[in-house]
Amino acid sequence: MSEGNEKFVQDNNQQVGSSSEDPAPKEGAGSEKRQQKLSKAERIALRNQANSENSLVSKIDYLSVHDDTTQNFGEYHLIQSQAVAASASRVFSSVSSLNKDRVGERVWIRARVDTIRPKGRSAFLVLRQSQYTLQAVVSESDRVSRQMVKWISKEVGEECILDIYGNVVEATVKSCSQHDVELQVWKLYIVSKVKGRLPIRVEDAGRPEWQEGVHVLRDTRLDNRVLDLRVPSQQAIFRIQSGVCQLFREILLREGFIEIHSPKIIAGASEGGAEVFKLNYFGQNACLAQSPQLYKQMAICADLDRVFEIGPVFRAENSYTHRHLCEFTGLDIEMAIRDHYFEVVDVLERLFIGIFEGIRQRFANEIELVQQKFQISPITYLPPGQNPRLHFPEAVQLLRENGYVIEDLEDLSSENEKALGKIIKEKYGTDFYTLASYPASVRPFYTMPKADDSRYSNSFDMFIRGEEIVSGAQRIHDWDLLESRVKAKNIPLSSIEDYMNAFLYGAPPHGGAGIGLERVVMLYLGVGNIRECSMFPRDPKRLRP
Amino acid sequence: MSEGNEKFVQDNNQQVGSSSEDPAPKEGAGSEKRQQKLSKAERIALRNQANSENSLVSKIDYLSVHDDTTQNFGEYHLIQSQAVAASASRVFSSVSSLNKDRVGERVWIRARVDTIRPKGRSAFLVLRQSQYTLQAVVSESDRVSRQMVKWISKEVGEECILDIYGNVVEATVKSCSQHDVELQVWKLYIVSKVKGRLPIRVEDAGRPEWQEGVHVLRDTRLDNRVLDLRVPSQQAIFRIQSGVCQLFREILLREGFIEIHSPKIIAGASEGGAEVFKLNYFGQNACLAQSPQLYKQMAICADLDRVFEIGPVFRAENSYTHRHLCEFTGLDIEMAIRDHYFEVVDVLERLFIGIFEGIRQRFANEIELVQQKFQISPITYLPPGQNPRLHFPEAVQLLRENGYVIEDLEDLSSENEKALGKIIKEKYGTDFYTLASYPASVRPFYTMPKADDSRYSNSFDMFIRGEEIVSGAQRIHDWDLLESRVKAKNIPLSSIEDYMNAFLYGAPPHGGAGIGLERVVMLYLGVGNIRECSMFPRDPKRLRP
Repeated sequence: MSEGNEKFVQDNNQQVGSSSEDPAPKEGAGSEKRQQKLSKAERIALRNQANSENSLVSKIDYLSVHDDTTQNFGEYHLIQSQAVAASASRVFSSVSSLNKDRVGERVWIRARVDTIRPKGRSAFLVLRQSQYTLQAVVSESDRVSRQMVKWISKEVGEECILDIYGNVVEATVKSCSQHDVELQVWKLYIVSKVKGRLPIRVEDAGRPEWQEGVHVLRDTRLDNRVLDLRVPSQQAIFRIQSGVCQLFREILLREGFIEIHSPKIIAGASEGGAEVFKLNYFGQNACLAQSPQLYKQMAICADLDRVFEIGPVFRAENSYTHRHLCEFTGLDIEMAIRDHYFEVVDVLERLFIGIFEGIRQRFANEIELVQQKFQISPITYLPPGQNPRLHFPEAVQLLRENGYVIEDLEDLSSENEKALGKIIKEKYGTDFYTLASYPASVRPFYTMPKADDSRYSNSFDMFIRGEEIVSGAQRIHDWDLLESRVKAKNIPLSSIEDYMNAFLYGAPPHGGAGIGLERVVMLYLGVGNIRECSMFPRDPKRLRP
Repeated sequence: MSEGNEKFVQDNNQQVGSSSEDPAPKEGAGSEKRQQKLSKAERIALRNQANSENSLVSKIDYLSVHDDTTQNFGEYHLIQSQAVAASASRVFSSVSSLNKDRVGERVWIRARVDTIRPKGRSAFLVLRQSQYTLQAVVSESDRVSRQMVKWISKEVGEECILDIYGNVVEATVKSCSQHDVELQVWKLYIVSKVKGRLPIRVEDAGRPEWQEGVHVLRDTRLDNRVLDLRVPSQQAIFRIQSGVCQLFREILLREGFIEIHSPKIIAGASEGGAEVFKLNYFGQNACLAQSPQLYKQMAICADLDRVFEIGPVFRAENSYTHRHLCEFTGLDIEMAIRDHYFEVVDVLERLFIGIFEGIRQRFANEIELVQQKFQISPITYLPPGQNPRLHFPEAVQLLRENGYVIEDLEDLSSENEKALGKIIKEKYGTDFYTLASYPASVRPFYTMPKADDSRYSNSFDMFIRGEEIVSGAQRIHDWDLLESRVKAKNIPLSSIEDYMNAFLYGAPPHGGAGIGLERVVMLYLGVGNIRECSMFPRDPKRLRP
């Protein structure tokens, strides 16, 4: 065995796993040593059992910190996966788990400093862990030296990460999410410090517009997005966004869909038009897919029957609005239909109501955090099958009846969409509805024309609060009809040759839809700007961070 | 109401939904008319109930086909979502649902023609629906005219899509997935026809290499991927791929992770190096992310604690091997750790064994289909916590003991990796294992060096069958150490400024890993080439279809 090797032969054996969420030990600090001995004995037993024939499978203990049995405060060495047995038995509690039931327990917590306020021989800290906050108090006592309080007041700043050991006591702290307890601090170590000055304060970034105090402009927040995302309501938005994705999949899998991944780098010009990012692919002209449209249709032609995809969508659109991004997350579905594109609408209605209900049930805390900040009421909707489906001419008629001027075959402007949303909300009592049979001229070339009136098409949009969240249609599955539409729209056939070929070999009737994830979250929550719902948004002016 | 509007006022009301999977009616064909009347009455009742106050919510019936009550065969008009009540009550069965228990039932099926063989006054068809096949026989009888058999023999070709109505009868058909029944055809309609000649036959594309007959080269198959994907074993691969994604998420959500979406268009040079696709972003230099590495770490610095992402990853690598793609689907995780990067390895081991077990349980049919074709045995692995974890010097030693020549700090070649896989399989009886503590020089700049020997790093790869499926590490969370590593690797600080800044504001110790979805599927199934596991693969020579 070479010299270098010997460093790696460890004589300990322990699995981690349960270190973060388990309840803290109920015994006092005095019993910690016993615990360590026990767990060391267990470790040895485990090792003998597991490693008897596996001598090369060496496992490493997990702690790399100062020995907290000899020193009650200080700054850790860099945590670098060293094997230090002394602290290996520490079990950490989550901030969210601390409430009245835990009073009297001694717990370890790793959390960030939201604020710190020294006061005489004490210091008051608010600790933050994702969207949860807890007050912690260090006071001079027989356990806490004056030196320790002084050191904390001097060394611990906002956004530091700490390991704290302390006693859970009853208290009323209205400003914290854990409002019926606080932590009496007995040991405190700095895990990670802030270097230099913070460009923005998290508290300021999270202040609602209607509240007095320092406000940070959205652009400044986005420039410092890593700090901005630490705001509890921002954390909540991204937990909800994750939830929307899970529900989207859960429901579609139940409906018999499978997940696919289509290429984002494609030859030719995607769906045509100028709004495409171009790139050089080993000497060939390529571009970024404006949507998975062409490929998800090809998957249907390949008999995958019902597919969905969640992936980035790229639009080189030079528009700077509250609801456009140059890169966003597309939620796409495509499915073979038996006869009618309303089969797709049926799936989507079940899907969306399933998502709305699921979010409401699983993310009640998060919704409250966001709505407290943005002061928006929840959306309303009816059970699946009862939300209005209007045909385009009916929408035109409704708008005219309410004094709006619109041509028969003109696309709806954003203003008309908003107005229609209000009219429908008043008439049917729902923020969620479908508008079908759009004029063919305002839909893409692959949209199936209406059988009895080719000025219209078998297409639809779905809306929340008067803003589009879904766009879908029956697609043309007949090569000859498709070719005539491509020619009519002056799209060079050569640029979509692979797509066209997919319809030569027998294609099932099919339809589908595209959904913008960030837009769904924005409209569901009533957050006024799509940038709030994109972790690192991209618009024509923003490529960073 | 304008003239155009009147077309949209429909007087019928029906939901679709259950049309594809419900069992077929058990009554004979004679009872169909009664059924239609009933369902029409029901529709009217439903309409009166639901639409009494919603006169604008018009719903449309779903059928647009010939009236199958007057004509037993023929070609449909283009299915274009017309409202034709005559066939609206048809319920379709899936091919996979037909077995001995269904004998005597009359069923509707929509399926593709796998093969057709006219024989005297009969025609034998094999129908295909995704990975399932069924024999159907049309024979002249009191229900089937000679004209109908002739027309079918003339008009129906391979890959046509048909609607068939017939009687399920007992039969032994070894070559079909539904091997104990066949369908006696009574009605047959063409839904979609093939235009021109098929460039490849699906049967040929699916023929295992070891079987006699026509074989289609992989490149030819990929050029005609829409046809190639119709091969049952190919269908199975993509159902399994979808399953891997679902299991990945299910397990990680259970472990407290959330899903994020990081930008793919980024400023600067991603992780550096030449292997990056460049593009113009509204006049600025941008590139496609080589991985979500920098952004998932930023999400951890933003306190999201445990994140995963499934998304495309872009590598402008000019290598043409069995396991490299220029665009693939990355399965990424990143998590705050308490002390040691083996916390990440623990999660990954539970994750992978959960995926292996889940796929085995949920996709037994699919695995069989794929393994029949590729003749590969399933992978072996031990329960979580028992699969070997070797440190790099131990691997070097093992290789040397087995006669391989390798330097202490040299990266493993593919050949050495394969050899090590065999040695470990023999020694520990598993295809799945972890190799940790790689030399620092062969890992990226953000990898945490080993505390007691900076020639090594807190990094790991995980392997199946001697090929890497995961690459991970503890990351450097300390700004100063990170800066020194960036400088040592000659990376311009300005190109990763946003990333660097994330470590100024207190960063938690963290680690993570990146996984290639296609590679996991390829290695789990033992499919020899990664292109088989990418729906539309991209390599330096392939940008299409």
